[in-house]
Amino acid sequence: MKKYQIAVLAGDYIGPEIMSAGLRVLKAVSEDSDFEYELRKLLFGGAAIDEVGEPLPQNTLTTCKNSDAILLAAIGGPKWDHALKRPEEGLLAIRKELGLFSNIRPTKIDRSMISYSPIEVTDSVDFVIVRELTSGIYFGKPSELTENDAFDTMRYSAREIRRAAKIAFEMAMKRKKHVTLVDKANVLSTSKLWRRVVKEVANHYPEVTYDTSYVDSAAMKIISTPEQFDVLLTENLFGDILSDEAAQITGSLGTIPSMSIGSSGPALYEPIHGSAPDIAGKEIADPISMIKSIAMMLDNSFDREDLAQEIYSSIYQSINEKNVTPDLGGDRSTTEVTDAIIKNI
Amino acid sequence: MKKYQIAVLAGDYIGPEIMSAGLRVLKAVSEDSDFEYELRKLLFGGAAIDEVGEPLPQNTLTTCKNSDAILLAAIGGPKWDHALKRPEEGLLAIRKELGLFSNIRPTKIDRSMISYSPIEVTDSVDFVIVRELTSGIYFGKPSELTENDAFDTMRYSAREIRRAAKIAFEMAMKRKKHVTLVDKANVLSTSKLWRRVVKEVANHYPEVTYDTSYVDSAAMKIISTPEQFDVLLTENLFGDILSDEAAQITGSLGTIPSMSIGSSGPALYEPIHGSAPDIAGKEIADPISMIKSIAMMLDNSFDREDLAQEIYSSIYQSINEKNVTPDLGGDRSTTEVTDAIIKNI
Ligand SMILES: CC(C)[C@H](C(=O)O)[C@@H](O)C(=O)O
Ligand SMILES: CC(C)[C@H](C(=O)O)[C@@H](O)C(=O)O
Repeated sequence: MKKYQIAVLAGDYIGPEIMSAGLRVLKAVSEDSDFEYELRKLLFGGAAIDEVGEPLPQNTLTTCKNSDAILLAAIGGPKWDHALKRPEEGLLAIRKELGLFSNIRPTKIDRSMISYSPIEVTDSVDFVIVRELTSGIYFGKPSELTENDAFDTMRYSAREIRRAAKIAFEMAMKRKKHVTLVDKANVLSTSKLWRRVVKEVANHYPEVTYDTSYVDSAAMKIISTPEQFDVLLTENLFGDILSDEAAQITGSLGTIPSMSIGSSGPALYEPIHGSAPDIAGKEIADPISMIKSIAMMLDNSFDREDLAQEIYSSIYQSINEKNVTPDLGGDRSTTEVTDAIIKNI
Repeated sequence: MKKYQIAVLAGDYIGPEIMSAGLRVLKAVSEDSDFEYELRKLLFGGAAIDEVGEPLPQNTLTTCKNSDAILLAAIGGPKWDHALKRPEEGLLAIRKELGLFSNIRPTKIDRSMISYSPIEVTDSVDFVIVRELTSGIYFGKPSELTENDAFDTMRYSAREIRRAAKIAFEMAMKRKKHVTLVDKANVLSTSKLWRRVVKEVANHYPEVTYDTSYVDSAAMKIISTPEQFDVLLTENLFGDILSDEAAQITGSLGTIPSMSIGSSGPALYEPIHGSAPDIAGKEIADPISMIKSIAMMLDNSFDREDLAQEIYSSIYQSINEKNVTPDLGGDRSTTEVTDAIIKNI
């Protein structure tokens, strides 16, 4: 039986708190199974800047590359606002260096979670956003800032679009067979290229219904008619904005995981929220997003849907038993919620 | 007494329907007052493409420039998807040519409208978005589309940022004295310039509380805690996305006006929604957004707050009397709603 190597990037503020909660659940769920793993705890983000002056130290990068999966909690915060390097640079660099070109975020309002949604959910909301993650305006050259002017370049190649599109269509085939490309093709050249390339990819998936939406309109539909979506495919910046908006309609930001994948090499799993400096150290951070990120890893990287399902059901059981942190209206601590989830396993 | 010249761009699909509704209200409200005006109906958008092959004919542009205010209903639609020119080009061109560098959109959930909001509104939501409208990635050069690559340039000068920022701070002074700059300064050079320039402008308004928010985070707060905002200031593309999202939380897209202003010359008033091809010709388009755009014009361009208030109160009265189109849950036609509003004047 293979012993999997898991890179662990705990990061900053609530990062270490939720990471240790997540790792306790991983331990519990694998104890009564044949799943074996080894953890490699690594410096990353602000913590790494403090220790070695770099948000993504070489050793962290190399070890991540040689691991079977990467767990990241959360990085950044006001502490490094005026530092020479910013924690976020590490995040962008690790995505780029590991070729993690697509970020996948589920937006699902489960029956047990319906009361948390700030919108009136009439139908079942269950879609995923496939966000291109290693190109676009985040990485486009040139980019310049002078005294009186600044510019950034949003750039895409057909190849970059095609590989992200394939992920979206493959995903749709396992889901409700519907892909919506979100762009601004009435204004942007890059969006026009997206339209052309994604249409070509769509032609290879005749079973999948394919349509498009302008990004401003998509921002409305996510609130007004989210049940119409299955897989939303979009470029990096639009994906950043829309996936955070989408998370918000569930009303339970602290419970949403995500994964970033490339064509080969390890995938990276992380909560979609940030490092929440305001609640760090108070033992009230919701550990569910991290615990679900671990379930996602077990399912996707290690083909252990069984273990993932065990985790998901004990999470829902705990929520039903009202073992929840303040963000979900409860009064339990991070540790108490984690204990409850472990007890249910 | 001056006779004001008003340019009228009715546009496409529901455009002409709501424009004529709006003009009927303008006529009614000015009849018992000393407000005199002349209408100049002009070709614009798809209608102009059909007639003369250009979305913004020279005569339309010149007449707009020489008018005291411009009313626009809505343009575009599937009819011109494969036309040589697109109606949207006319919209971008008129903004640029008239120097309408800032677009102002109120997001307000009035007591009478609370039931329409898809979110649970606990506190009073009342903010405006000041969107930079004539620069950024919409107009940035170079931009290119080839077989295998494409790029767009997001570009800003300090001057462009400063003049938009001033509008936002002046507006805040008349409101709740709070400006939030929305950007992506952890990634973009242009956002870093925005931060620097807006901070300088903020220093001239010591009474205004000034803070910043990343665009992804702002997309969340608009849903979770919209009552925290007063004036949101942002660049063109972010403003496009966020203002449509914000409109959606009111649940009454068909009732929201906007204005676009420059440093001199006529301002342009228009509903924030599009030309709604699916409901065109059915006599069910909500005329309120157009009627409110006219009220905004009376107040802002012609200093007739009195007439504007008359219009607003008769709109609310009609809504309370359930004289509303299907988008607000009613069964009245565009004409019936307009009649009701006129009766209340
Ligand atoms: C921290 C920031 C650079 C990052 C992004 O914009 O990609 C974050 O918002 C995210 O979505 O992971
Ligand atoms: C039609 C389109 C080009 C336009 C824009 O993006 O500015 C519209 O969405 C708007 O907000 O007025």
